[in-house]
Amino acid sequence: MTSFKVGLLGRGTVGGAFAELLEERAGAIEASTGMRPEIAGVLTRSQGDFDEILASSDLIVEVMGGTEPAREYILRALQSGKHVVTANKQVLSQHGEEIYAAARDGGAQLRFEASVGGVVPVIRVINETLAAAHIHRVHGIVNGTTNFILSEMTRTGETYESALAQAQELGYAEADPSEDVNGKDAAAKMAIIARLAFNAPIRLDQVPHQGIENITPDDIAHAKEFGLSLKLVGTAERVNGGISVRVYPAFLYGQHPLASVDGAFNAVTIESPAITEVTLSGPGAGGSQTASAVLGDVISAMIPPPSLPAPAEEVELVTDVESAFYLHMEVADRPGVLAQVAELLGLQGVSVKSVVQHGLGDNARLVMVMHPVLESKFLAAVELIGRLDFMRAEPRIIRVIEEFFD
Amino acid sequence: MTSFKVGLLGRGTVGGAFAELLEERAGAIEASTGMRPEIAGVLTRSQGDFDEILASSDLIVEVMGGTEPAREYILRALQSGKHVVTANKQVLSQHGEEIYAAARDGGAQLRFEASVGGVVPVIRVINETLAAAHIHRVHGIVNGTTNFILSEMTRTGETYESALAQAQELGYAEADPSEDVNGKDAAAKMAIIARLAFNAPIRLDQVPHQGIENITPDDIAHAKEFGLSLKLVGTAERVNGGISVRVYPAFLYGQHPLASVDGAFNAVTIESPAITEVTLSGPGAGGSQTASAVLGDVISAMIPPPSLPAPAEEVELVTDVESAFYLHMEVADRPGVLAQVAELLGLQGVSVKSVVQHGLGDNARLVMVMHPVLESKFLAAVELIGRLDFMRAEPRIIRVIEEFFD
Repeated sequence: MTSFKVGLLGRGTVGGAFAELLEERAGAIEASTGMRPEIAGVLTRSQGDFDEILASSDLIVEVMGGTEPAREYILRALQSGKHVVTANKQVLSQHGEEIYAAARDGGAQLRFEASVGGVVPVIRVINETLAAAHIHRVHGIVNGTTNFILSEMTRTGETYESALAQAQELGYAEADPSEDVNGKDAAAKMAIIARLAFNAPIRLDQVPHQGIENITPDDIAHAKEFGLSLKLVGTAERVNGGISVRVYPAFLYGQHPLASVDGAFNAVTIESPAITEVTLSGPGAGGSQTASAVLGDVISAMIPPPSLPAPAEEVELVTDVESAFYLHMEVADRPGVLAQVAELLGLQGVSVKSVVQHGLGDNARLVMVMHPVLESKFLAAVELIGRLDFMRAEPRIIRVIEEFFD
Repeated sequence: MTSFKVGLLGRGTVGGAFAELLEERAGAIEASTGMRPEIAGVLTRSQGDFDEILASSDLIVEVMGGTEPAREYILRALQSGKHVVTANKQVLSQHGEEIYAAARDGGAQLRFEASVGGVVPVIRVINETLAAAHIHRVHGIVNGTTNFILSEMTRTGETYESALAQAQELGYAEADPSEDVNGKDAAAKMAIIARLAFNAPIRLDQVPHQGIENITPDDIAHAKEFGLSLKLVGTAERVNGGISVRVYPAFLYGQHPLASVDGAFNAVTIESPAITEVTLSGPGAGGSQTASAVLGDVISAMIPPPSLPAPAEEVELVTDVESAFYLHMEVADRPGVLAQVAELLGLQGVSVKSVVQHGLGDNARLVMVMHPVLESKFLAAVELIGRLDFMRAEPRIIRVIEEFFD
C-alpha cells in the first residue's frame, strides 16, 4: 500500500471535519488513485511542530485562518516543493502574489477552492474550465450570512437588527458579525476571484466595500414594486481597458441568475463572450462543505490528470423507484367519483397531497398531486382508475420532483 | 517557442468555432502555459489522413460526432499515448468502458466536458471538485431544445407543436428534432454523468427515457395551480444500494434549484450529504460554447496541475463605473417636487426608468429606478437633490444590476 501523507495545520471546525471526512473516504480514494491518504501530523496552537510535520508530509492542508503564521507556513511548504491546499481567504487576499510566486518557483501545487464560495467550485471553474475564456465580468453572492439576513428581511418584512439576531440564533452569523455584514469578507473573496479571472494582482485593500447594516425594510418593500430583489453583490469586471472590483448591496432584476438565490447560499455568475454566462450555486461554507472542498483539492493534487477508474463491481440498475406524481383525469361530473378514485389510490398505498376539480358541463376535470410512492404501485392504481366507467379519457400522469434534499 | 500540436477531427459548427477560438486565444494560452497551441492537421469527410495527423499531434480533438469512425480514432489515439478531448456523447454513452480503459492503459488523458451540459462544467465538477464526495443524486436539465419548448409552452400557453415550430425558427431545434424531444439525447448525457458520479458502467441502452411530445397546455396550466413548473429531467440516483438512471418530463416545486431554469439553458444539481447540493447552470450547447469547453479541456491537458501565472503588467483599477440606481426620497407633498428632482437628475445626464410616489400625510415617499449612468454623475445629482428645501430626510441610494449580459 502506498500512502500519501497529509500535514494538517489547524484543527477547528473545518480541520476536524476534514480529518473525519478523510478517514471516511480514504478507502474510496485509494481505490481510485492507488494511494491511501493519511494524516501525517496535526499542528494546533498547543501541540505539534511545523518542521517535523512538513518533513513527513507530501502535502500541507492549512485551515488555521488568519495571516500569520499561516503565511509563513504556506511559503515554507511551497518553497520546499510540497503541495499546499488552503481555505484561507485572508492570507490569499493580502499576500497572494508572494504565495503564488512561491508555488511557481517551488514547482508545487497550490489549491484554494475552499477559500471562496463554500461548496461552489468557482476557483476551479475560472482557473481550469474557463482557462480558454476571456472573462468579462463576475458577479458573486459570496457571503452566506448577509444573504440569509437579506432573504429573511425580504420574506418577513422585519428589520436588519431582528434578521441578524435570527441569523445568530441559527448559527448563520457569528457573535461578532462585523466582517460579514460590512462587506469585508466578501471583498477578500472578490479580490481572489479577480486575480484569477483577470490575471491582475488585486489586493483586499484595493476593493471598496459597503455592507448591509443600513438597509431598511422600506427599501426592500419598494424594490418589490419594481420587481427587484436585494443582495450583497461582489462585482469584478473589465471597464474601458481597466478593471473594477467592488462589493455593495444591489437590487437585481427578477430574471438575473442571482436574483433567486435565497438563504445562506453562495452563487457566482461568470460572463464571457464565448460562453455567455455560467452560474454556480450552493450552500455557503459550513464545516463539512469546506472540508469537502479541501479534500477535493487534496485528491486533485494527488492525481493531477483526471483518470477514470475501472468501474466498480456490477451494481444493480433499479427500475422501480419512488416518485411523487401528478394525475389528470377527465370524468363524468357526478357524485362518488372522487371517492372511487381515492379508494383505488388508497388500496395501493398512494397518498394524495392536493386536489383540484373543475366542472366542464356534464364532465369535470379532476387533477391531483400525490406524495412520493413506488412507481409500480401508482401505475397499478392508475391502471384500475382508467377502467372506471365514469372516466371520459385516458388518465394522464407526470412525475413531480420535490424541492428538498433527503 | 514551444508549440503544442492539436489534431482536429471534424470541422462542422463546433470544429470551425474551435479552430477560430484557438487562434484567437493562442497568445494568452502561450503566456500562461509556456506553449503555443497550433492546429497540426484537420480531418474531414473529404480531406486529411488520420495516421498522418495522429503522428504529428500531441493531442487529438474529436468533434466529428457519431459512433464510427470516431470510436476507432479515439481508441487509436489513446493507445498511442496521445491525449484526447471529445465532445461526442454518442460514442461515450455507447462505447465508454472501452474508451476509458484505453485511456488508463495508454496513460493518456481523456477529457470530455463538451459532451454534456454545454458550457456547464458538470464533468469537471463531478470528476474533480467532488472527487471526495459520495454523490447521492444528480438531477439535470441537459437538453436545451426541450427546455426552450417547455418554457415557451409555459409562458404563452401554446401547444407543443407550435412551440416546437418556434424553436425550429429560432435555431433551438433541428429540422428533425426526434432525439431531442423523445429524450434520447438527454439519456445519453445522463448515462455519462451516472458513470462518473457512481463509478458504474451505465450504457445509453440501459437508460429508460420519455420525451415531451405528449405534454399539453392543460397539464402546464394545472401545474401552475400547484406551484409546479415542468421540465424534461434526467435523474441518476442511488436507490437501496442500487442505481437508477432515467429521463422523463417532471414537475418541480418552485423552490427546487432547477425550477427557475428557463429557455435554452442547461443546469445540473448534484446532491451529496457532505455538500448538501451544488447547482451549475448556463446556456445549452451552441457552437461557440462547445468550442470553449473543448478548449478548456485542451488547456487542462497541456498543464495538468493548475499553475497561477505571474500577473500581467499593471492594469488600471477603475473606481468610477456605470451602474443603474434606486433612489429613495422622503419629500414634502407639494407641487413641483418631482419636476425639481427630475431636473437635477437630467442636468447630470441621469435618465429615470421608473417612479413610484406614495403620500404620507403632509409628506410623500418618492422612489425611482434609473437607467445605468456613471456613478460620479449620479452621486453629484443626489448631492444637489439632498439640499433641496423640501427634502425631509437624507436620500437613500442602492445600486441596481440589470438582467442582461452586455
